[in-house]
Amino acid sequence: MKTLKSLGEFGFIKEIRRWPRSGRKALVGIGDDTAVFSLPRGPLICFTTDTLVEGVHFERSALPRRVGWKSMAVNLSDVAAVGGIPKYAVASITIPKWVNWPYLKSFYSGALDCAGRFGVELVGGDTVKGRELSITISLVGIVEKGELTLRRGAKSGDSLYVTGYLGGSLAGRHLTFSPRLPESRFLVKHIRPTAMMDVSDGLIQDLGHILEESRSGAEIWLDKIPVSRAARKLSAGDRNAALSSACQDGEDFELLFTVSPRKAPVLEKMWPRRFAVRLTKIGRMTAAFRGIIYTDKGIRIARPNWLNKEGYRHF
Amino acid sequence: MKTLKSLGEFGFIKEIRRWPRSGRKALVGIGDDTAVFSLPRGPLICFTTDTLVEGVHFERSALPRRVGWKSMAVNLSDVAAVGGIPKYAVASITIPKWVNWPYLKSFYSGALDCAGRFGVELVGGDTVKGRELSITISLVGIVEKGELTLRRGAKSGDSLYVTGYLGGSLAGRHLTFSPRLPESRFLVKHIRPTAMMDVSDGLIQDLGHILEESRSGAEIWLDKIPVSRAARKLSAGDRNAALSSACQDGEDFELLFTVSPRKAPVLEKMWPRRFAVRLTKIGRMTAAFRGIIYTDKGIRIARPNWLNKEGYRHF
Repeated sequence: MKTLKSLGEFGFIKEIRRWPRSGRKALVGIGDDTAVFSLPRGPLICFTTDTLVEGVHFERSALPRRVGWKSMAVNLSDVAAVGGIPKYAVASITIPKWVNWPYLKSFYSGALDCAGRFGVELVGGDTVKGRELSITISLVGIVEKGELTLRRGAKSGDSLYVTGYLGGSLAGRHLTFSPRLPESRFLVKHIRPTAMMDVSDGLIQDLGHILEESRSGAEIWLDKIPVSRAARKLSAGDRNAALSSACQDGEDFELLFTVSPRKAPVLEKMWPRRFAVRLTKIGRMTAAFRGIIYTDKGIRIARPNWLNKEGYRHF
Repeated sequence: MKTLKSLGEFGFIKEIRRWPRSGRKALVGIGDDTAVFSLPRGPLICFTTDTLVEGVHFERSALPRRVGWKSMAVNLSDVAAVGGIPKYAVASITIPKWVNWPYLKSFYSGALDCAGRFGVELVGGDTVKGRELSITISLVGIVEKGELTLRRGAKSGDSLYVTGYLGGSLAGRHLTFSPRLPESRFLVKHIRPTAMMDVSDGLIQDLGHILEESRSGAEIWLDKIPVSRAARKLSAGDRNAALSSACQDGEDFELLFTVSPRKAPVLEKMWPRRFAVRLTKIGRMTAAFRGIIYTDKGIRIARPNWLNKEGYRHF
């Protein structure tokens, strides 16, 4: 029998995708970073939603301003993931007894600060009472047809890149990260990645989504993975622990994307002139039947045993 | 000192509206039934979100199919409230341990059924774990500029109408109601109401929003208010209790709207030919300084003492 636990979050999403449903007019429906559709006469629209719940995505002790920032930033990261331009947001908040007015003001100032910095306007929402603090922000943006970049489209031979540093985000960065919107806009305008997504559930798990949607395999160069300072610190000199953290912690909100070999040199030349954010080539795409191949310092190795656990699972 | 309790939900919304915020490009922002904005080259877009929380908007014992239906229908009702056409939805669900796979399947089938009946496609969402079941659906639709109908715009002398029957919704109808989309579309196309909203927090409280936004007063004819069978039954023959229920219970999700006296006869002639849903004239708009005037069988009466309590308050 199917259970929520046996299905897991992604099994659950796969199930939902299969159910009979009206419409199917959307260009991108359930299962990518954002939904994409068009309206009469208009541009393509991307539409995404994310929920943060206390004790899961933040602790009660976290600064409310930062919780507000994160609640907006995770949605912006989803829009960046497809190459879109975020425009309007609505925020629905469930407020338990322990939340007071100063907390709420501070929370909203963080969310509005993040929205403002990326040109997004908060236009509505809902406020209800409940037993745990929970925030759902939904975001509408636009994306030009030629710039829309999804998880499908990576081809054997493409270079695999990631922005920034990975791992140890829960030590603090998950509340203060900057969604990679300018970087995404640059990429879709000038480089046209073949596939792209944001790293939210851990590098290896998220890469799995690109492989599945693109029907391809990948070679990962472990010695090239940009391990964050937080992940290094938490692992106290244990290289495997640091790599495990970088590959599986989740909540990095960096861009993971693939670029045709022809475009890779241009990308690597232009990037440092525009962005202070690090860009790292961490592998390349291969044929689908190869799955994920791991190399360390150029030598092929077996699947590392610290990869036993999967990425973050909700159920 | 300001507290959440002293502010209440509407004070809270007023506060948020005042805060400095980027943008302000939206045609309708925080505080109406949906936000409305345009995107380059496109039609006007309406954007709304609603959260249902267990123990507040439904009980655990409620049929999950109905909870799913309601979670979609409340959003559709918001789009109906402004005269829009709903198009795409995303659903974010927080799942506690007591929710199993059959519950979820049934929940989604209810939400998808409701979406399908009104031409809406579910295109994405988020699933997270938490301690209480909570569903936030956000909806994007379109609305023609000439058809957009807001809470502002009612004028002294306009007739005040409500669809359906009011009160006692919590006895069951709040889980099975039909959003008044066809009715709303008819009204904005053929009658052009001067102001409109859906009754979600109780007739008197919601009418207050129209008065405030339109800067007008109203005369309410108590003997004309369409009291639902459920409200009658619950009040066991006590007329005041039944009226109190109809005026204040909330969750009716009927349309409340105002029509210029010139259009009223056309409306009353066309309505019964098109809809089985009842339409009732329950009063008329007056000058703002008059506030709300109550009449019973044509005679002006003092503010009824059963109106002491306000509509539903979240905090």
